[in-house]
Amino acid sequence: MERIKIGLIGLGTVGSGVYKSLAQFDNVEITKIAVRNINKPRTVEVPTEKLTNDPYDIVNDSSINVVVELMGGVEPAWDYIKTALENGKHIVTANKELLAKKGEELFKLAEKQNRVVLYEAAIAGGIPVIMPVKTILAGNKINKIQAILNGTTNYILTKMDADGASYEDVLKEAQELGYAEADPTGDVEGFDAAYKITTLATISFNSRVKFENVYREGITKIRKEDMQRANELGYKIKLIASATIDENNNADVRVHPMLVPKTHMLAHINYVTNSVAISGHPIGNIVLSGPGAGEFPTASSVIGDILAIAREWKTTDYLLPMMRCKHNSTANPVKIDDTYNKYYLSITAPNAIGVIAKIGSICASKNISLSSIVQKGVKDDNTAEITVITEKCLEKNIKEIVNELEGCKINSLIRVMEG
Amino acid sequence: MERIKIGLIGLGTVGSGVYKSLAQFDNVEITKIAVRNINKPRTVEVPTEKLTNDPYDIVNDSSINVVVELMGGVEPAWDYIKTALENGKHIVTANKELLAKKGEELFKLAEKQNRVVLYEAAIAGGIPVIMPVKTILAGNKINKIQAILNGTTNYILTKMDADGASYEDVLKEAQELGYAEADPTGDVEGFDAAYKITTLATISFNSRVKFENVYREGITKIRKEDMQRANELGYKIKLIASATIDENNNADVRVHPMLVPKTHMLAHINYVTNSVAISGHPIGNIVLSGPGAGEFPTASSVIGDILAIAREWKTTDYLLPMMRCKHNSTANPVKIDDTYNKYYLSITAPNAIGVIAKIGSICASKNISLSSIVQKGVKDDNTAEITVITEKCLEKNIKEIVNELEGCKINSLIRVMEG
Repeated sequence: MERIKIGLIGLGTVGSGVYKSLAQFDNVEITKIAVRNINKPRTVEVPTEKLTNDPYDIVNDSSINVVVELMGGVEPAWDYIKTALENGKHIVTANKELLAKKGEELFKLAEKQNRVVLYEAAIAGGIPVIMPVKTILAGNKINKIQAILNGTTNYILTKMDADGASYEDVLKEAQELGYAEADPTGDVEGFDAAYKITTLATISFNSRVKFENVYREGITKIRKEDMQRANELGYKIKLIASATIDENNNADVRVHPMLVPKTHMLAHINYVTNSVAISGHPIGNIVLSGPGAGEFPTASSVIGDILAIAREWKTTDYLLPMMRCKHNSTANPVKIDDTYNKYYLSITAPNAIGVIAKIGSICASKNISLSSIVQKGVKDDNTAEITVITEKCLEKNIKEIVNELEGCKINSLIRVMEG
Repeated sequence: MERIKIGLIGLGTVGSGVYKSLAQFDNVEITKIAVRNINKPRTVEVPTEKLTNDPYDIVNDSSINVVVELMGGVEPAWDYIKTALENGKHIVTANKELLAKKGEELFKLAEKQNRVVLYEAAIAGGIPVIMPVKTILAGNKINKIQAILNGTTNYILTKMDADGASYEDVLKEAQELGYAEADPTGDVEGFDAAYKITTLATISFNSRVKFENVYREGITKIRKEDMQRANELGYKIKLIASATIDENNNADVRVHPMLVPKTHMLAHINYVTNSVAISGHPIGNIVLSGPGAGEFPTASSVIGDILAIAREWKTTDYLLPMMRCKHNSTANPVKIDDTYNKYYLSITAPNAIGVIAKIGSICASKNISLSSIVQKGVKDDNTAEITVITEKCLEKNIKEIVNELEGCKINSLIRVMEG
């Protein structure tokens, strides 16, 4: 049997997992691995002659059929991948940022070169999502995705909820445990989830979504009091990546915290687990859940992609349709201000007669119906905490309200998922 | 573009859904449809010249590339499929009973004929399971499956739980709503789930599981009192299809009711939704949930299979490895009596001094540890209801206990899923 030859760029935890797990398959062979430091001690035993510190040794090696890129970041990864494609290699990558920012160029180049780019590991780690959407779900018109795509933020929110702890305290603990990075910005401000939903929406809608059109809001302002109020009202707070598309190709794609009804499966996805809920016709609704990161789950997806190429690589003409990410159209962006949502609003108001009436009448003037309004006692400073859940209303209008509530302090404004 | 020609056997709800949904794809065409009665009025408009009442018109038609079998049952479906394969056609089927009972012969014949048999719709309806296991999860050693694979029984159990109603009452209601058939045996006695887990375990373990070795127990003996006790103890009762395999190729495959801890995702799969939890290495645990039946979800899977063939049908040599169900080994069966499980036991005992001690000592004599034992009040007839949850113990031993509890009435013995 002719073995397919793999070049690996990056031998961190995922790369090591891939190297170890691929050993059992006799139709694939990793022949070269690019690392930063050849002499660094490693947990995986690799023959020294396979190591190089120059990725161009791999992407320019004519004997290599598939380049597996596991280094992350846009540059220099993008240049390695471009060179590899130009040299006729298939690509397997876990690089969500590159896919979100360079996807269009990347897939155009792959098409021109008649090669595939597979990236199951880049979106939702070990959960099978990309391959199912491209193959067994291909007969569907998918029009909605709601997902938990970032393990770090889901860990933090779950812990805040379970322990009644503040964001800052849980972040610190998560950093100590290695669940959050020293600079957590990429996770907690929603960039990571935004990269992933950009590509997932693009492939699901079969219409390109541009990263710069994805609305993004992180979890740093969520208070432990919000967690508590949400629970009392029948919700959990989660960082939700969502995407919807209408018949006119208008795509509303975003990442922000949401109150998720406890009756919804996403409310029960806890700690570092990820989950993707997909709706479409004729399928209806499906939910795919599992580990969103980690050495082994990510390795599972990378290996799945490598084996898919290995089993069919001799027939590139036919391999391509099933595995290609081709988009004839670009989706029209929808501005967040023009969207309709339900909102959770926490207000600290002076305990004066008529404050509830005032909130009610300001909302009515903006055409906003209230689903519930709860005032809990009066504090020592003679203020009251008022929690409002609205019906669906225009984002622009709710923002105006927030500015017009004179004398009141707005503690939180969080969107609410419909039940 | 050369269109792939499809022959459809069966034009019921699923067949109609497939016919309607395939119209939008220009690389496939349904050219002939076998129905029982050509003149029957239908919800879908089909040109009369496409209809035949003889399936052999389809399987013997040399212009047809793919036969889609949606009639169900072993005979005569098996003869149609055999003939179609012998005539060089690829097969797409939703026939779980045929796969469970004739799978070995079927896949051997397909291999000999160099054709594929795809069957995503046969297991868990619209949920993508079979294709992911064969493609993106192919790098894994899957060793455990726990699943809810039958919508009718899950509907009945969910309703019993929600309404505090008896099995008989809910079954009647489910029959009126069309969720259960007039003769519900195939669903409520676990045959349907057993067919599905036979094939799902076979493909996941890459080792053939024989239907006759699948232990099977239905839900007809579950009492509303069991539902209530389970809830109090932190569980929900579900009909679970499970399969595990060890390193020596011993496969324990079964369908029976279980107390599922509320912390487990399967406890929250309600009404007609299905769900498949898969464990393996390197993936860890994933859970795939969605509609397990119905016109549209099932059509989604059938169409996914048809499109997979349509996109690659010119290259059968290469199509086969990825889509083939090939097993070099047959799994060794494990007898239910030799398995270790936790148990829920409901006992009605005479309210005599020392009855709890008696139960405890009988259990101890069989090496069975108790996890909890609860006695609730005393009834008018001077009996007490005692609920026991055991630690893991040998099935053979728990059965012996049940026989040795003299003077006690055993209301229920149900296995308990580990948390």
